Amino acid sequence: MKAKREALVSLFTAMREGKVDEDIIDLLLLINSIRGIYTTSSCSGRIGIIEEPALGAKPLSRWLIKVHREMTFPEAKKALEKAREGLIFLKSQPPIFHVVAEDLEKAKRLHELGLASGFKYTTFKVISNRYLVEINATEYLTAPLGRDGKILVSDDYLRFALEIGNSMLRRSKGRLPRLMKNFEKLREELGEDELFYELAGEFGVRF
Amino acid sequence: MKAKREALVSLFTAMREGKVDEDIIDLLLLINSIRGIYTTSSCSGRIGIIEEPALGAKPLSRWLIKVHREMTFPEAKKALEKAREGLIFLKSQPPIFHVVAEDLEKAKRLHELGLASGFKYTTFKVISNRYLVEINATEYLTAPLGRDGKILVSDDYLRFALEIGNSMLRRSKGRLPRLMKNFEKLREELGEDELFYELAGEFGVRF
Repeated sequence: MKAKREALVSLFTAMREGKVDEDIIDLLLLINSIRGIYTTSSCSGRIGIIEEPALGAKPLSRWLIKVHREMTFPEAKKALEKAREGLIFLKSQPPIFHVVAEDLEKAKRLHELGLASGFKYTTFKVISNRYLVEINATEYLTAPLGRDGKILVSDDYLRFALEIGNSMLRRSKGRLPRLMKNFEKLREELGEDELFYELAGEFGVRF
Repeated sequence: MKAKREALVSLFTAMREGKVDEDIIDLLLLINSIRGIYTTSSCSGRIGIIEEPALGAKPLSRWLIKVHREMTFPEAKKALEKAREGLIFLKSQPPIFHVVAEDLEKAKRLHELGLASGFKYTTFKVISNRYLVEINATEYLTAPLGRDGKILVSDDYLRFALEIGNSMLRRSKGRLPRLMKNFEKLREELGEDELFYELAGEFGVRF
């Protein structure tokens, strides 16, 4: 799979540059070591505060803070001091994995695997001839906090919303071990990909 | 398609009982009149206030108010008087259509159609041998308002969050005419389904 070679080089390069979320590195390596599938963009789950200039103007949004672990109240307060323009949202998002499968059978297996691991919002798309499975969960929070630099919530509310956002992140991240176990089983089923081990060797990736 | 016959009977019965969101009836009839596809559950988009006993305990949630049009501030205040137990969220969700396609080609066409109509979160699943396409958008709001009967936001904040939720609903519903046009084109491509017209006749459905 030529596309897999490119994706692996991309992943290993990003790892070398410290650009891959640490808490999913092992899982990403596991998934990519399996024959017939590979990951594209993935995220270990995050909570952050974002400014959106206008509803729907996503490319122009800017994160005031974005972390892949729970956010503290002092961090949130500090980040909000930077708010300037647009709608301010507290957002919490679960881990999300994009996995390409080389055929429909594997895409279906991945879909079942995501659901069986508790990622209830797992779906897929067919783009050109590739099957792209999105392993996703339901714990999303999108709470408006203010507008144009003005915070419209009290400290108590901010603590409350943060607590909910952090809980959601804990819940969804809490399924990662199960997802890992299920991918280990899938590897036994589908077999290992020599290309992965070859490139990992070249990049000095250890696992 | 036996499954289509059952789905159509189900739809026409629900229409007869006033259980189908009025503003998508024409679109649902159009989609179902096309050969090779049919709708299962769909929703015209909604905004509501929900109580969730615990994070993730979805079946035990109860809606304090749920409307398929914009919600007013007095309605929201009144609904909040009923809050008792659990986390209280204001939720805004876009229109969502579930369309079954009889083969992969049609599923891919539906997927493109959804995306081309601005429903950027259109995906699909394969369940048994059926292709289920979900035409979905990105405008979701999930804003916590309080807990266990206690409202933790001011009236000003409630107005603010409602305004955002209502805007999101306006935006996503605003794409329905485009979606309708694209389904009209799809009907020219795939042809009409005689079964639909036969059953529509039996149920006295007019369009």
